[in-house]
Amino acid sequence: MSCIFCRIVAGEIPAEIVASDDGGVAFLDLQPLADGHTLIVPRVHAPSIEALDATASDRLFRLVRRLADPVRRAVGAAGSTIGINNGEATGQTIPHVHVHIVPRWPDDGAGSIHTIFPRRTSRSLADVAAAIRKATAE
Amino acid sequence: MSCIFCRIVAGEIPAEIVASDDGGVAFLDLQPLADGHTLIVPRVHAPSIEALDATASDRLFRLVRRLADPVRRAVGAAGSTIGINNGEATGQTIPHVHVHIVPRWPDDGAGSIHTIFPRRTSRSLADVAAAIRKATAE
Repeated sequence: MSCIFCRIVAGEIPAEIVASDDGGVAFLDLQPLADGHTLIVPRVHAPSIEALDATASDRLFRLVRRLADPVRRAVGAAGSTIGINNGEATGQTIPHVHVHIVPRWPDDGAGSIHTIFPRRTSRSLADVAAAIRKATAE
Repeated sequence: MSCIFCRIVAGEIPAEIVASDDGGVAFLDLQPLADGHTLIVPRVHAPSIEALDATASDRLFRLVRRLADPVRRAVGAAGSTIGINNGEATGQTIPHVHVHIVPRWPDDGAGSIHTIFPRRTSRSLADVAAAIRKATAE
């Protein structure tokens, strides 16, 4: 078992665990983007949301929601950026799904999720929507 | 009803809707960050994840998971950045929870979620973890 998040789930390596239930384990990121930066990982190893089964996904997000309020309150934040780098192409470095909750304050110097994108598009909304509706029905 | 997302949910204003169920409505962002940029909004008006009740949150994230794979396949993407600007301090502009799924490709010029943060912290992990554990138990 070489996955670092599997090893944290198994208790084989230490972490600042803040909550744990059937949905997964929540612990502090060792290289925090802000005070209170928390990672929530499912108990099962899966590289992406698509690879998690429905039950595991449901439980994972239930834990995320459960933590959103206490993480914010614990550090006196105004909000949080919640996000998943879902796949290697997004900058995901550990191939075990992890949801970031990063507390936010007004004027904290960080941006919105929008700020990471150069806004490159080439297809019409109607064309893309038709393709997604078709893929959703498959 | 002045909330634009409530009005899309109610069918009062048009949108490129790609899926809809008891968890909410999924439609294309009118100002896409990338081809296939999809928003998923709950049917009920709530400004943040913390303000959604547990059932509404469960259903919302079930729809997010359901869409992650078809959105990616429909545009031939390698992954997706999934995220929530959760609160005005994060750059959230419409105060009705919305989850972004933004398709990603290698070398698409976008960054990871990490790239939006200047990495400012002032507290020790142990101190923060204790505060979150206390807030979680409340």
